[in-house]
Amino acid sequence: MYPDLRVGMVGYAFMGAAHSQAWRTVNHAFDLPLQARMSVVCGRSADQVAHAATRLGWAGHTTDWRSLVESDEIDLIDICTPGDTHAEIALAALAAGKHVLCEKPLANSVAEAREMAAAAAQAQSHGVRAMCGFNYRRVPAVALMRDLVARGRIGAIRHVRATYLQDWIVDPEFPLVWRLRKEIAGSGALGDIGAHIVDLTQFVTGQSITTVSALTETFVRSRPLPSESAGLAASANGTVLGDVTVDDAALFLARLDGGAVATYEATRFATGRKNALRVELNGALGSLAFDFERMNELEFYDATGPGAEQGFTRILVTEPDHPYVAAWWPPGHGLGYEHSFTHEVRDLIEDIAAGRDPAPSFADALQVQLVLDAVEQSAASGAWTDVETVLEPA
Amino acid sequence: MYPDLRVGMVGYAFMGAAHSQAWRTVNHAFDLPLQARMSVVCGRSADQVAHAATRLGWAGHTTDWRSLVESDEIDLIDICTPGDTHAEIALAALAAGKHVLCEKPLANSVAEAREMAAAAAQAQSHGVRAMCGFNYRRVPAVALMRDLVARGRIGAIRHVRATYLQDWIVDPEFPLVWRLRKEIAGSGALGDIGAHIVDLTQFVTGQSITTVSALTETFVRSRPLPSESAGLAASANGTVLGDVTVDDAALFLARLDGGAVATYEATRFATGRKNALRVELNGALGSLAFDFERMNELEFYDATGPGAEQGFTRILVTEPDHPYVAAWWPPGHGLGYEHSFTHEVRDLIEDIAAGRDPAPSFADALQVQLVLDAVEQSAASGAWTDVETVLEPA
Amino acid sequence: MYPDLRVGMVGYAFMGAAHSQAWRTVNHAFDLPLQARMSVVCGRSADQVAHAATRLGWAGHTTDWRSLVESDEIDLIDICTPGDTHAEIALAALAAGKHVLCEKPLANSVAEAREMAAAAAQAQSHGVRAMCGFNYRRVPAVALMRDLVARGRIGAIRHVRATYLQDWIVDPEFPLVWRLRKEIAGSGALGDIGAHIVDLTQFVTGQSITTVSALTETFVRSRPLPSESAGLAASANGTVLGDVTVDDAALFLARLDGGAVATYEATRFATGRKNALRVELNGALGSLAFDFERMNELEFYDATGPGAEQGFTRILVTEPDHPYVAAWWPPGHGLGYEHSFTHEVRDLIEDIAAGRDPAPSFADALQVQLVLDAVEQSAASGAWTDVETVLEPA
Amino acid sequence: MYPDLRVGMVGYAFMGAAHSQAWRTVNHAFDLPLQARMSVVCGRSADQVAHAATRLGWAGHTTDWRSLVESDEIDLIDICTPGDTHAEIALAALAAGKHVLCEKPLANSVAEAREMAAAAAQAQSHGVRAMCGFNYRRVPAVALMRDLVARGRIGAIRHVRATYLQDWIVDPEFPLVWRLRKEIAGSGALGDIGAHIVDLTQFVTGQSITTVSALTETFVRSRPLPSESAGLAASANGTVLGDVTVDDAALFLARLDGGAVATYEATRFATGRKNALRVELNGALGSLAFDFERMNELEFYDATGPGAEQGFTRILVTEPDHPYVAAWWPPGHGLGYEHSFTHEVRDLIEDIAAGRDPAPSFADALQVQLVLDAVEQSAASGAWTDVETVLEPA
Repeated sequence: MYPDLRVGMVGYAFMGAAHSQAWRTVNHAFDLPLQARMSVVCGRSADQVAHAATRLGWAGHTTDWRSLVESDEIDLIDICTPGDTHAEIALAALAAGKHVLCEKPLANSVAEAREMAAAAAQAQSHGVRAMCGFNYRRVPAVALMRDLVARGRIGAIRHVRATYLQDWIVDPEFPLVWRLRKEIAGSGALGDIGAHIVDLTQFVTGQSITTVSALTETFVRSRPLPSESAGLAASANGTVLGDVTVDDAALFLARLDGGAVATYEATRFATGRKNALRVELNGALGSLAFDFERMNELEFYDATGPGAEQGFTRILVTEPDHPYVAAWWPPGHGLGYEHSFTHEVRDLIEDIAAGRDPAPSFADALQVQLVLDAVEQSAASGAWTDVETVLEPA
Repeated sequence: MYPDLRVGMVGYAFMGAAHSQAWRTVNHAFDLPLQARMSVVCGRSADQVAHAATRLGWAGHTTDWRSLVESDEIDLIDICTPGDTHAEIALAALAAGKHVLCEKPLANSVAEAREMAAAAAQAQSHGVRAMCGFNYRRVPAVALMRDLVARGRIGAIRHVRATYLQDWIVDPEFPLVWRLRKEIAGSGALGDIGAHIVDLTQFVTGQSITTVSALTETFVRSRPLPSESAGLAASANGTVLGDVTVDDAALFLARLDGGAVATYEATRFATGRKNALRVELNGALGSLAFDFERMNELEFYDATGPGAEQGFTRILVTEPDHPYVAAWWPPGHGLGYEHSFTHEVRDLIEDIAAGRDPAPSFADALQVQLVLDAVEQSAASGAWTDVETVLEPA
Repeated sequence: MYPDLRVGMVGYAFMGAAHSQAWRTVNHAFDLPLQARMSVVCGRSADQVAHAATRLGWAGHTTDWRSLVESDEIDLIDICTPGDTHAEIALAALAAGKHVLCEKPLANSVAEAREMAAAAAQAQSHGVRAMCGFNYRRVPAVALMRDLVARGRIGAIRHVRATYLQDWIVDPEFPLVWRLRKEIAGSGALGDIGAHIVDLTQFVTGQSITTVSALTETFVRSRPLPSESAGLAASANGTVLGDVTVDDAALFLARLDGGAVATYEATRFATGRKNALRVELNGALGSLAFDFERMNELEFYDATGPGAEQGFTRILVTEPDHPYVAAWWPPGHGLGYEHSFTHEVRDLIEDIAAGRDPAPSFADALQVQLVLDAVEQSAASGAWTDVETVLEPA
Repeated sequence: MYPDLRVGMVGYAFMGAAHSQAWRTVNHAFDLPLQARMSVVCGRSADQVAHAATRLGWAGHTTDWRSLVESDEIDLIDICTPGDTHAEIALAALAAGKHVLCEKPLANSVAEAREMAAAAAQAQSHGVRAMCGFNYRRVPAVALMRDLVARGRIGAIRHVRATYLQDWIVDPEFPLVWRLRKEIAGSGALGDIGAHIVDLTQFVTGQSITTVSALTETFVRSRPLPSESAGLAASANGTVLGDVTVDDAALFLARLDGGAVATYEATRFATGRKNALRVELNGALGSLAFDFERMNELEFYDATGPGAEQGFTRILVTEPDHPYVAAWWPPGHGLGYEHSFTHEVRDLIEDIAAGRDPAPSFADALQVQLVLDAVEQSAASGAWTDVETVLEPA
């Protein structure tokens, strides 16, 4: 039998449910050197966290995250709370020698993210691992995209074109949930979904964004206060209005350090687009395109083949020779959103067992935060804004 | 706490793994009146079944299916073995008063299927439930397709066009696995995947196939004997050849009792098509099209809307108001193949708790078997062959 | 200056308009050894044909097709009338030493088609050329499909899957136009559009259909008599009904002489499908798929490439190295339906100038007619029906 | 018979060929109050223009554009030359009382464009008409897009997302053709294809771009000098290099006067994208998306319909109730690139006959030029740059 990896998870809403499914599944799909144990889930309300423990399958539950991170019965802290609490929990967990998996965005401010990255670097010297949960890196089609770029299949990259389009608050009567309040969420579409395309494009290209010109917009500036919410759904509470203090949409131009130019767009107002995380790369030798609405597909244009046969090849990324896929079903039997989390914790478990640093590191996530910060600065000033670099060139 | 539903599963290969994931997940995704327990898994090899129990997450294991079906510690038998053993196990389980979930095809012969349907009908009078595992019915897009037909949104159905295209044995060096041997598998593409499109089209249309004209073909008539296999993958064992005794492809025309005409095609030789289960229905008022390679989408043509705006609407079947979806993730976060099994056992659990007969019943599955039998007869005789009806009109 | 090719066209409805656009355009797009001249258009009504001459751009007009085919001022007769008149006109034209381009289907009966093929064979010995107008062969994507098959890129063909789906008479109030009357049209969907997919699949595969099992159906058996019609559009004339004497849909299974098995379906009742001529070929080394609704694209699966990069490649058949395309616009600037006719007359002009026999010959078209005849016989008898072969193996 | 509209065309390369096909076809497809006559084509080389007259179907030819614009035998001057000559020819033609159709971009500088717009406004008072050739407005799917927006079907527009992606100069050995030289072409991707998406989005939204933040990039800064070119194809002449003096790609963010935010990207370095002019609009009530690579389709999301049936509807814009389509072929028989020009001259002829001002006017085209100018200024300065408004609000 393999040694246990005892997990304590903080937060149990949308992200907590997704992570729970991952922890529950990972050792059944993959043969791993550690056995994940769903030990304790933590939340603020005793009643609700007890219910969540049952529903999500955790052995225990608590309302005291500080004792959880200090517990000798826990090896890893999985942080699934809103962004305003990430730093405090993560810093305490790292200080207590616990491995940390922290949902994105790493923090609500660069200052916090910087502190977290520093703590992670220090903890690393004691064999403690920290990872930020940019789960889309673990979609098989995205991992294949990264592989093809790394193998030079599209040559020098000229263009990056990234959008993350949703429409869940187009209705002006949709209430003022926490994701629309700056003090909790940090930012709006920018940090929630823009962070994903910043990380994803830096990951697949191997390049860093160096400078940005941005605009942000809040189309609906006040909304009814919410009565209750669950996941991204919520209902309004009568006619009392509150101010939306985050962006509904963020658009920016960018340059990357490998010479590519880029457009980015994150919005919650793209009517009919439910979760359209799309990335296209155009290189000197080919192109790659991904759309999460068809997450089991990758489009690849190979400009080096016979001319009359060239075109975008729709690769069904469901075959045993594709990343992560051999663990699952026969050819053509697609995976879903949740598998990205299962792959994430699979990689994390393997890295912990091997004594390797997982990616994306907190430093990677800080770098994303610095981009988001530059975007906000640029949107405010109207000027191109350079991104500070914390990462050494790969 | 809810009462337990203690499951004993026979077989632990591809289907066993898929069912295990479903049993493990179902009570975490859905709020259900019974709590599934993964009690015992059963297989022929003591070593392998012990390993499977660990890997797939079953509390116990055994090599004796007869004692399993008689055990007082088991409420439901889940049959995931090849088709030649379905009848014996299912009959014994029903006789022992156990609920039964039996993978498709129900049996390798009409005679067996008939006996099983009769046993299920008798068991039903004692409150024992039997269901056949045509999992594709539980893909949300397929369930939505059924809803739209039932609500009259496409009117009287004129055409059914169904294919199930795979390519996993195009290579003539692929070995002679059990699925290519008639004595174990019953038939080839016809029973393995053709059964799915027969059931699926009868389900979504609410119509039964009444007569068929068929051809079957075996393109590669001998293959190397296998050394080992896992799932649909396998490796060959040198140069000793054996005869392929099943069809590689089955094609047939059909008429349905509601007036539709149809084409069906099941093949393992459609190079590049990995799991292309496709169904299109054309009705007097609209059309519907589904392709499992894009399982989170349904195409709907509504001929009753404004003329200049008509077209096939690509419905992303990932929204809370779609069948099964509210239990999962936010809008646009797609599901995968395995979710069809989770939905299947969810419906089964609800039916058992409610004292309702689940669908598809063994009689439904016998009806599918009668179609397959008519197809084989027609392919042999060259004549149109009528399908015996066991089902009363809905 | 190049010598003239003086054309006399009989018929000026939908097909006449399409051919006129082709004759008008061909020498401007292509550099050809003969200069087409739109000399005379012929029709039954003096008023209407005069009007058509102006509208379609013909120098002269006549109501006397017999004098037209005998005229010394005419080199080629282009037959665009309904199928019941093809034989008489074509035979007279060939007898008069005129080249003939005859719209498909070649004739309404095998007997007529046989006579026409014999006459064409005899005329050939005098340097007179005859071609049947299966224009879809000249869509660049179809021509590319043919090239790829001929070059062995998909290997031995296992499966042919062909549909031609339209929906223009789904409405039961659509009137009884000539295309729905057997005495004029010969057959319904079978001859009108089924003929195209029979020719097209025989063309792209290089194989001939040897045997068929068919069903035909007429969903709406009586319709209002028409008041007037234009192209495929028409309006009804009150409540007087007449009998539909042709098929609304024809479905058949087939075997081809190279070992492939096939499904064919032609229908005018596929709601929402406007002109969905689709052909898919699955071979031992790859697959090809074409859909006329996206006529500038061809999908190609190459199973010989790197495994993890395989998929269906969407070739935009709009590049200079694709068949016919260099004559037109820059990369990516798509062509339309009418260009298939321009390419058809381009090839015909080049063949005439070179003293070559054009394809499809009348013998090719007779072979199509023999398939249609076998389909009708099979639909009537319920038995598999062999197709007589007039063509020698290629 | 209708009165003649005698056309003199200046320039006979790619655009000249496209316009010729339009003039040749328009009166045969549409019933119009004026009969276009292809009177004279004009070019610099006597030999080449004589050859072009034959090839493109013009009755006469000349090398003297000044006498052409003054000729009493000409009613309309069609300008198909590179942008550096537009102003001089157009001004002379308008002064001579000739109607003018001028290819886009209207001019190479704002100053020229302003002068042309002023001249057109003055000529208008004498019944002389001027139109700029933004042909993509006349693609049926684009015209339908405009109609749906104008009818309020997508509500208030939040997002505009426009790209025009080509790849014809990805190869660094592609020679330095005139389109890559600023003194002739004015700008690179920006003016050549960026102009189209600026005009198109302003047309379909009915909104004007008010401010931009831009970057431009030239990836390949020197190229071999060309030996000869035709259309967009060209061959290089050995190893002598020259400087590329235009942009290879232009990207910009924008705000529109109706409240929408936008991203724009025009590039010749999007490997595999041949002519991907794409526009997506997201509104409060729905969305619309168009891609010229599938020019016969329009995607429409209607957020006002039944929730579970919502999705992007792929409208095949090939039906008689769609703009321009009734003149052509039966349902589902798609059109090509050249039809946009035929529709353009059809609208121009109708406007001339009706004494109406055609759109896009020279003022509309000046407005596009002002946007392009602001983009270039912004790219140079790094600051957001406002666009001067010459158009009164609609």
